[in-house]
Amino acid sequence: MQSKNKHEVNPRISADCVIFGFDFNQLRVLLIERSAVENVPSMMALPGDLIYEEENIDTAASRVLKELTGLEEIYLEQVGAFGDPDRLNKKNDQLWLKAVRQDPDARVITIAYYSLVNLDNYSPQASSFAKSATWMLVDDIQELAFDHAEIVKAALKKLKDKIITQPIGFNLLPEKFTLSQLHRLYESILGRDLDKRNFRRKMLKLKLVESLDEKQEGVPHKPSQYFKFNEENYNKLIENGYDNFGF
Amino acid sequence: MQSKNKHEVNPRISADCVIFGFDFNQLRVLLIERSAVENVPSMMALPGDLIYEEENIDTAASRVLKELTGLEEIYLEQVGAFGDPDRLNKKNDQLWLKAVRQDPDARVITIAYYSLVNLDNYSPQASSFAKSATWMLVDDIQELAFDHAEIVKAALKKLKDKIITQPIGFNLLPEKFTLSQLHRLYESILGRDLDKRNFRRKMLKLKLVESLDEKQEGVPHKPSQYFKFNEENYNKLIENGYDNFGF
Repeated sequence: MQSKNKHEVNPRISADCVIFGFDFNQLRVLLIERSAVENVPSMMALPGDLIYEEENIDTAASRVLKELTGLEEIYLEQVGAFGDPDRLNKKNDQLWLKAVRQDPDARVITIAYYSLVNLDNYSPQASSFAKSATWMLVDDIQELAFDHAEIVKAALKKLKDKIITQPIGFNLLPEKFTLSQLHRLYESILGRDLDKRNFRRKMLKLKLVESLDEKQEGVPHKPSQYFKFNEENYNKLIENGYDNFGF
Repeated sequence: MQSKNKHEVNPRISADCVIFGFDFNQLRVLLIERSAVENVPSMMALPGDLIYEEENIDTAASRVLKELTGLEEIYLEQVGAFGDPDRLNKKNDQLWLKAVRQDPDARVITIAYYSLVNLDNYSPQASSFAKSATWMLVDDIQELAFDHAEIVKAALKKLKDKIITQPIGFNLLPEKFTLSQLHRLYESILGRDLDKRNFRRKMLKLKLVESLDEKQEGVPHKPSQYFKFNEENYNKLIENGYDNFGF
């Protein structure tokens, strides 16, 4: 195989990142404002770009995320490949590509990745062709560049599937938390109301959380009990095959 | 965008199919024997090939599967993208590519798809560069071309995740079946023994199967009760959000 320039761009493959951020109230997603070019206004998009010819796709996803938003050390999982032959053919996207890309007519297939983070721990800083980078409420997303709205939808579906089959999200929690905070995390991701008493009962039955001998202080309502995550039970659950049928 | 030849090949993207077949005894996977070329013996591989420039990836996967094995009308789901820059660099794979491909040095990223079928309903017929096509026991798989062994492993993981979170597999069953057959399906996919009484209890509790007023005849052991799948309850379960926490 001929040797290639380490940073030679692969004109046909890109990586896009769907980073969900949770602040214990609402679910957001990290978007960039794509730079304006002649006659094309700026537009919101997922952080994403072409991969290098000699680069692993996973590595490319992390690199691109860092280049556009400054975020790093985020565990990314694949959503999948998006390859509709018309995915880059909206008029404004075409004009933008012609202004910025060497091979604007190339068909590009993108590999999308996703993650869920506590957004308090990450402050995005826009650079490269990103004019700004912000945490946008998932519910407020309007039109996005390319097929990015479809990609966000698919990533959200993966996140929902994951949270109902694995006790994810605990790594996002502070060391001590109330069951209301956990309840809100689940509601935000699933996008529906969950009965509070039922939720409480199920969570305690799974033994993934245990109550601390400590309550909230200085709150304007009846103080809630604090809980902590039980990592040992979590690992046991994962090892033993955490499943619906409970085989 | 310039118009392209409808069947112009995209030299950088391929689609590979992992078709699992179940015969109510063991889990198999559909493999082709890749044609031999000068100095390179034939080798087992997944059915897969380059996509066309103007083709959707999903469509390409179905087309490629049909071209190499004759199998069609199979519902395919994505496993994901596989893009290690060295995935085509094993010596025999390189020699084979040089003999058959126009652009053998191109880095190819593959999008893998999978499905689970009742193999009694499908008779593979090899064509194109496939010398033969066979249902191989998953446990018997040795070396495969490219990174195909890794892809099979990833697809199997998806299948396992799916069967423990969704009641799949029922579409594979005959109209009436015994709980032993269903038990064997789950054991084969999960690759581990499942307690028979426990399995029986859980399955009946989910109300996905209901007993028929009919037993096996002419069997050398105590005849088993026949069951049928309850599609109505299945659909209810799916609609209501089938999940571990049972929210």
